[in-house]
Amino acid sequence: MTNNIEHIGIAVKDLEAAKSIYEKLLGTVCYKVEAVESEGVATAFLKSGVNKIELLEASILESPIAKFIDKRGEGIHHIAFEVDDIESEMARLAAEGFTILSDKPKKGADNKLVCFVHPKSVNGVLIELCQEIK
Amino acid sequence: MTNNIEHIGIAVKDLEAAKSIYEKLLGTVCYKVEAVESEGVATAFLKSGVNKIELLEASILESPIAKFIDKRGEGIHHIAFEVDDIESEMARLAAEGFTILSDKPKKGADNKLVCFVHPKSVNGVLIELCQEIK
Repeated sequence: MTNNIEHIGIAVKDLEAAKSIYEKLLGTVCYKVEAVESEGVATAFLKSGVNKIELLEASILESPIAKFIDKRGEGIHHIAFEVDDIESEMARLAAEGFTILSDKPKKGADNKLVCFVHPKSVNGVLIELCQEIK
Repeated sequence: MTNNIEHIGIAVKDLEAAKSIYEKLLGTVCYKVEAVESEGVATAFLKSGVNKIELLEASILESPIAKFIDKRGEGIHHIAFEVDDIESEMARLAAEGFTILSDKPKKGADNKLVCFVHPKSVNGVLIELCQEIK
């Protein structure tokens, strides 16, 4: 892919509190708050140069973010890379032996089609691919 | 700061194996391998658009990377943000209540002055600031 990091996803317990911390850290203001019902998360986005930080709070008990925080505490949850053609990247990575977590891209936050690559095939890092919906 | 993410640091057990995995993932080749004796790490860098991935392998037993992997396994270790003036950013963040882990910037990998912000003040995320040495 060799495209920019689109965002880094950070699992937090309290979205409002974390938003205020990251606004101070980055010296900017959150530009978007969005619920993603399908994933059971509430998200807040901040820009840092061309990149973004996505703060993720669980909105339901079964949310992957709730499970992540239970197991590891708050912290970095995933890295998302921008791709031009998500389906062809999914096919390329599957052929390279990576484990893709869905057959088809799904609708994610921030007007994106997304899919995830299993951390076990990438040194413990959950990778997201995302393509802007045009 | 609101500058680009300079790189994401990923703690790995085997630098050569991880390099090969990330070369496949990103569809690029590693452009630099560098030992940072002061931190007890061997590093490998790959570009992804304007951003970089830094793979980190412990080169001594007491390396922070060895401790990290013992405790949490392989995975994302830190996010580094590019800054124009690291000393003024350190002062700004300290005044905002963040815990900076050194009084002065240190020489890091890839021709940078670096410092770290304690994860406890940033929702469990180890933040690095880095400034290119001119």
